[in-house]
Amino acid sequence: MARTKVGLVGASGETGASILNGLLEDGSFEIIALVRPSSMSRPSNVALKDSGIELRALDLDNDSQDKIVAALEGIEILLSAVGAPGQLSQLPLATAAKTAGVKRFVPCGYVTVIPPGGVHILRDQKEEVYNLTRRLNLPYTFIDCGWWYQISFPKLPSGKIDYAVMVDNPICGKGDVPSALTDLRDVGRYVAKVIRDERTLNKMVLVYDEVWTQKEVWDLLEKVAGEKVERKYVSQEELEGRLGEYKKAAEADPTDFMKMLHVVETQYLLSWGVRGDNTPEYAKYLGYITSKELYPDFKPLKLEDFARELVAGEAKEIYVEMKAMMKAAFEKQQQQQ
Amino acid sequence: MARTKVGLVGASGETGASILNGLLEDGSFEIIALVRPSSMSRPSNVALKDSGIELRALDLDNDSQDKIVAALEGIEILLSAVGAPGQLSQLPLATAAKTAGVKRFVPCGYVTVIPPGGVHILRDQKEEVYNLTRRLNLPYTFIDCGWWYQISFPKLPSGKIDYAVMVDNPICGKGDVPSALTDLRDVGRYVAKVIRDERTLNKMVLVYDEVWTQKEVWDLLEKVAGEKVERKYVSQEELEGRLGEYKKAAEADPTDFMKMLHVVETQYLLSWGVRGDNTPEYAKYLGYITSKELYPDFKPLKLEDFARELVAGEAKEIYVEMKAMMKAAFEKQQQQQ
Repeated sequence: MARTKVGLVGASGETGASILNGLLEDGSFEIIALVRPSSMSRPSNVALKDSGIELRALDLDNDSQDKIVAALEGIEILLSAVGAPGQLSQLPLATAAKTAGVKRFVPCGYVTVIPPGGVHILRDQKEEVYNLTRRLNLPYTFIDCGWWYQISFPKLPSGKIDYAVMVDNPICGKGDVPSALTDLRDVGRYVAKVIRDERTLNKMVLVYDEVWTQKEVWDLLEKVAGEKVERKYVSQEELEGRLGEYKKAAEADPTDFMKMLHVVETQYLLSWGVRGDNTPEYAKYLGYITSKELYPDFKPLKLEDFARELVAGEAKEIYVEMKAMMKAAFEKQQQQQ
Repeated sequence: MARTKVGLVGASGETGASILNGLLEDGSFEIIALVRPSSMSRPSNVALKDSGIELRALDLDNDSQDKIVAALEGIEILLSAVGAPGQLSQLPLATAAKTAGVKRFVPCGYVTVIPPGGVHILRDQKEEVYNLTRRLNLPYTFIDCGWWYQISFPKLPSGKIDYAVMVDNPICGKGDVPSALTDLRDVGRYVAKVIRDERTLNKMVLVYDEVWTQKEVWDLLEKVAGEKVERKYVSQEELEGRLGEYKKAAEADPTDFMKMLHVVETQYLLSWGVRGDNTPEYAKYLGYITSKELYPDFKPLKLEDFARELVAGEAKEIYVEMKAMMKAAFEKQQQQQ
């Protein structure tokens, strides 16, 4: 049987890499990585090519519509995992996918459950892409995946897990709001199942591993690490105050993505940490099908196991590039002061 | 068994009147009509009161949030059929419905199947109301009903059906685009079923009677009336050209609803007549459940029967008030020239 041709935009990002792994593990797909022309010779892409994955050049910001259509030739399922700043670059991609006859378009979701319309800027940009997809009558699946295990923990006083904890998370409110969490490594495994499942065609899907409150996550880490963790609380009012300031700063300098990132982060905390949007129940209310209904036999990675890896120094550092960018931006700011 | 308390905003409009009839025919609801304070003494509302329907004053444009909440007290299902210009007045209504503990909010849909995001201004205003509803985590059903039989016919050369045909419809493109049609009198009958159906909670529902192309409708009218009808075609390009002009005129004078109405009408023709949005298939793709799936035993009124009524002079004139408004606006324009 011929393998299904799957195109993947953004294979070098965290989500993209997980999806790539999921597709490879599954084994039933012929994978075409759509890569910026300037990145074709990057070691990571050369490695992809050496492992038998077809590389095709695609520059969503500069290519003509015809060129994008040509890059999609023969692709049956088109997956996009573009980075946060690139959401709207998927508008020409969706239009090209319709022309190219793509049988299922899976634009970049992969966030927590958030309702569209003013709660989160990234979600609203995704909604623009979803709405264009629907307007085009292009077959679709929209996949969200909750919050990653990998970014759910605070730092430990010993510094032991600093190597893998990007942000020293605060506890929102009283820390009693449940939130759907997923191991980043499971995201791609779910995606490989979802995209060839007829039940998920033209549907929104939430894939997630486990539901935890922040208080429970902090308790778990203390238990696993044998260290007391200082609990830094942040209230709804504080978050809303910060959000107002961050929005002003971002509007004053719309080209500075780092400023926008503060808005993005704070809106996440307000959505999953305060409003409580990121639950399977709310997802169902919004029209999602969940991975628990679809794949009751799937064996999710456990948050407790991830915590053990983390404390044992065996977790993988994520967002290496983004951290370097943030560090550079911080140093620049320091120099200017 | 206690009857379910249903609140209805906009009972005096065409859709509202159909809903009211549907609820009364059903017999299992206690109906509360929410009426503008200035309209409480109108003969139609006095008649409602005399027939045992509770009237409550509600002014969505001016009442405080507390006052709106108070007007909704005890209402279990809240239906809104506000007029075209009043879509956004439902934003405070949705917020109040959440506070008042409404168990199901059915905001004003009752249009053709249209995707959100730039195809139709009314649909996009409804999307704002839908998005707020979802953000509030307020139980909902969003109901659309296709295009009414009552506005699907052209005029006859004999003038025989001018009494009930509001607009002398053109044929869009080649007239071969299928569209879901519903007798206005059936809308309320469907609504009475949908609003107490657990399967439609937090869902979008398309209710419709029959699917026809314009060519077929014109053929039907000729057969029933025994008259040849002149077929006036309008192309996609013409409609798009008009739309551009109408948008400019409406933007230049945003307080003139008659100007906006030209935009609204033209966008409808482009959506159901050219794009072909108004079909059960596209509705399902967009996530709707349809009345055919839900109520296979429902006996819809037939378009052919309606055509016979129309030709026999037995159809009801609709939009009497709006026609008077349009006539006045037209005469004013003539005077100014």
